[in-house]
Amino acid sequence: MAMAEKEFKKDKNKDFSDWYNTVIYAADLVDNRYNVQGFIVHKPMAMRSFKKMYAIFEKELEKDGHQPSLFPTVIPEENFELEKKHAEGFVADVFWITERGSEKLKRKLALRPTSETAMYQMYSLWVRDHTDLPVKLYQSCTVFRNESETSPFLRGREFLWIEAHDAFATEKESKEQIAKDMGISARVLGERLALPFMFFDRPKWDTFPGAEHTYATDILLPDGKTLQVASTHLLGQNFAKAFNVKFKDAENNEHFVHQTCYGPGIWRIMAAVIAVHGDDRGLVMPPSIAPIDVVIVPIIKSKADPTAIVDKCRKLKDELIEAGLSVELDLSDKTPGFKYAQWEMKGVPVRVEIGEKEVAESRVTLAARDTKQRRQVSDKSVVQEIRKLGEEMAARLKKNADDYLVAHVKDAESIDEIKEILDKTRGYARVNIHSVEMDGKECADTLQFETKGGKVRGVRIGKDEKPSGDAKCVVCGKPAKHVVYIARQY
Amino acid sequence: MAMAEKEFKKDKNKDFSDWYNTVIYAADLVDNRYNVQGFIVHKPMAMRSFKKMYAIFEKELEKDGHQPSLFPTVIPEENFELEKKHAEGFVADVFWITERGSEKLKRKLALRPTSETAMYQMYSLWVRDHTDLPVKLYQSCTVFRNESETSPFLRGREFLWIEAHDAFATEKESKEQIAKDMGISARVLGERLALPFMFFDRPKWDTFPGAEHTYATDILLPDGKTLQVASTHLLGQNFAKAFNVKFKDAENNEHFVHQTCYGPGIWRIMAAVIAVHGDDRGLVMPPSIAPIDVVIVPIIKSKADPTAIVDKCRKLKDELIEAGLSVELDLSDKTPGFKYAQWEMKGVPVRVEIGEKEVAESRVTLAARDTKQRRQVSDKSVVQEIRKLGEEMAARLKKNADDYLVAHVKDAESIDEIKEILDKTRGYARVNIHSVEMDGKECADTLQFETKGGKVRGVRIGKDEKPSGDAKCVVCGKPAKHVVYIARQY
Repeated sequence: MAMAEKEFKKDKNKDFSDWYNTVIYAADLVDNRYNVQGFIVHKPMAMRSFKKMYAIFEKELEKDGHQPSLFPTVIPEENFELEKKHAEGFVADVFWITERGSEKLKRKLALRPTSETAMYQMYSLWVRDHTDLPVKLYQSCTVFRNESETSPFLRGREFLWIEAHDAFATEKESKEQIAKDMGISARVLGERLALPFMFFDRPKWDTFPGAEHTYATDILLPDGKTLQVASTHLLGQNFAKAFNVKFKDAENNEHFVHQTCYGPGIWRIMAAVIAVHGDDRGLVMPPSIAPIDVVIVPIIKSKADPTAIVDKCRKLKDELIEAGLSVELDLSDKTPGFKYAQWEMKGVPVRVEIGEKEVAESRVTLAARDTKQRRQVSDKSVVQEIRKLGEEMAARLKKNADDYLVAHVKDAESIDEIKEILDKTRGYARVNIHSVEMDGKECADTLQFETKGGKVRGVRIGKDEKPSGDAKCVVCGKPAKHVVYIARQY
Repeated sequence: MAMAEKEFKKDKNKDFSDWYNTVIYAADLVDNRYNVQGFIVHKPMAMRSFKKMYAIFEKELEKDGHQPSLFPTVIPEENFELEKKHAEGFVADVFWITERGSEKLKRKLALRPTSETAMYQMYSLWVRDHTDLPVKLYQSCTVFRNESETSPFLRGREFLWIEAHDAFATEKESKEQIAKDMGISARVLGERLALPFMFFDRPKWDTFPGAEHTYATDILLPDGKTLQVASTHLLGQNFAKAFNVKFKDAENNEHFVHQTCYGPGIWRIMAAVIAVHGDDRGLVMPPSIAPIDVVIVPIIKSKADPTAIVDKCRKLKDELIEAGLSVELDLSDKTPGFKYAQWEMKGVPVRVEIGEKEVAESRVTLAARDTKQRRQVSDKSVVQEIRKLGEEMAARLKKNADDYLVAHVKDAESIDEIKEILDKTRGYARVNIHSVEMDGKECADTLQFETKGGKVRGVRIGKDEKPSGDAKCVVCGKPAKHVVYIARQY
């Protein structure tokens, strides 16, 4: 398989798009030459990380009482029509199956763009009384959308995700689930993937089709555009009414269920990991999802007998695999410097160097991917030291990324200031705005036009941010009811 | 969610089909009421087992040097046409996407029925010289086939599987891979799932479309029909020529690669687990893939204070979860006997009973799903004893299933004897046959007609079974070149 043959060096912050679109191919994550546009091939270096990311999310979902399930990939057209706003929101995006063999189907089948309309008809069969609730199911799968512009992990015609669909007896429980879902996002993104993020309550005009509220997780990428990587939609009883999902309470009274759905965007989270942690040398993968945990590079002087060095490398490789790490031993005939650059580009968190000295002194040399600083450790404690180095690196990644985010949120009091923040700071502008209900949409549209794409991302969740008494909307000058964040978006 | 409310009792051997089609719904594995025929909903009890089965197979594949990948679900029509026999074999089975949004596609896209024609065009881009070989990739996914009759886990319009696709420089390596694939099947099926199986070299007229040879793994179900659960196809250079997958050797000479593909039929293996191990009380799941490892049932006398018993149950539940087991604690208000029957029906391998005595004597009572025999064990060793009970049960399942298979293979010397074996013994007839090359097809067709569906499954692999010098074909009476097995099939 192809592997980049040159040293990787690109200025991530100068031209992020160029950096991103070079590194994902150089690091052998994907191939975009599949002969259906917008559909990509996921190569092993990507799939190994995705498998780890799925395992982390699935464990969190199951701890919160969700159970795994799998619904059909195909959804009949009539299911779509049941929830009108949902149908309007998705119908242009849908790939339709119309034939089987040489026969025309009597009704069209959609490739799922999302699974509400597949799942909730079944919920209506399963839910009878209050003892059947809550229903909390998730599925890990790909979904399909007819996007016009695509980019690997950011936007695609087929992409990886998880969708969790919950039904509750009470509105209270459904609202409590939003906090639980945000807790899952926070633990996975913040603690495991070292990613900084913000939770937003989306403005009314930007909710999921068919939902009452959308609570979304955004991550700022180095080009200043923000990426929605997960969201929970408070569906209220909209879908319950459309799909007739009802239960009898203890007094035998019938009610519609209250629903939420939570979608961790596995693809987009990978994009965020690449974009936030990567540097000019290539990928920097957090140890929790690195496709390769450790690379071992033998340092062999040209005239020396390599046997003892290679033996030690092989022995260490077995020891690390035994300890549950995924390990590459690079015995190719390239120079050590070339090998370092290659594995750095692929983002391997820890490199082990073994030469004559390391053999003689019963130790190895470790280097972390991010700082490239070397550390000597004894053979006896090497597994432990590799783990420690990984943890230290993850902590540094988190701190750097957190600092970056803090430095890229600025208050603005005029549209010019917002433009300045979007164009120069390349971050979020925090502003006072008239309203995030439908009566605020005109201001948002003006703002988007004036700032060339700046969007109201919503009211921050988990922070008590309110305009002062006399604050005015940055667009219309009317009294401001909300503090919101503006950014260009993916 | 619905759960069977009555005690399960069905005679598996008397009417296997009725048993199977009752137990898969009673045990809450699937729901077949999805409103597209032949597409089913996988419920948590099935998905939990599938997740474990996938993990076992993926680990084995990766140990053998395969790497995870994911290719698009859609395949353009022109890819299908490149390997002619393959296209002929699959084209009637294909679901076609012809529209996106309201727009007609310029060319049709197939939902993958299998991924040779998606993957090998990429292999032709990736393979340049001998250092790029071997390529060994797998993907875990669902595939789509327009089957006319469907049954959960046996045959469906969308089903779960793994496909591993390998390309080698030499024919020798490709043939060696067949043995490696069979090793994986043997370890997973035989050692982890307690299933007996036979490997067959399929007759020439029954190979995979486009392959030179098909090496298949068959399992006998209780109705006497045999089920192909996995296969490796020796593709030779057929697809390499169709998709132009070539490499340069060390002397710069160009060659087509030699290919194999291996498909563990995840769905069908689940069907075999259910069918082979189940009994008249319901599922019997081998511990390696049981959706629930342990159920804890408190035994509470009607007038006694349940606090100490329930506390002990809860404490044990936490301890078992801590030890990595999936545990249900049944605190419903049903009787213990009712609970036993419910969890037996769902195939939970180990039941823990805790009553007054168990509290007083610092012990618990364990019962294995298959024998239902009880055993007293000390609180201190409960995790260890549960594991031991599971291992003992798996060994018993294996022995019983092996004995069953041995008793259901019989030699036959006439078509009448074959009929007797298929109808009464409900097993395999072992016979001498003229040929398994194309010149033997007429005998096979006659045999299939005369025996109402008996099929030549092929020559056994791993056994040196040859006809004696004067043996005659059981159908045509010509000299017999092969010993083959006949059975009806799924």
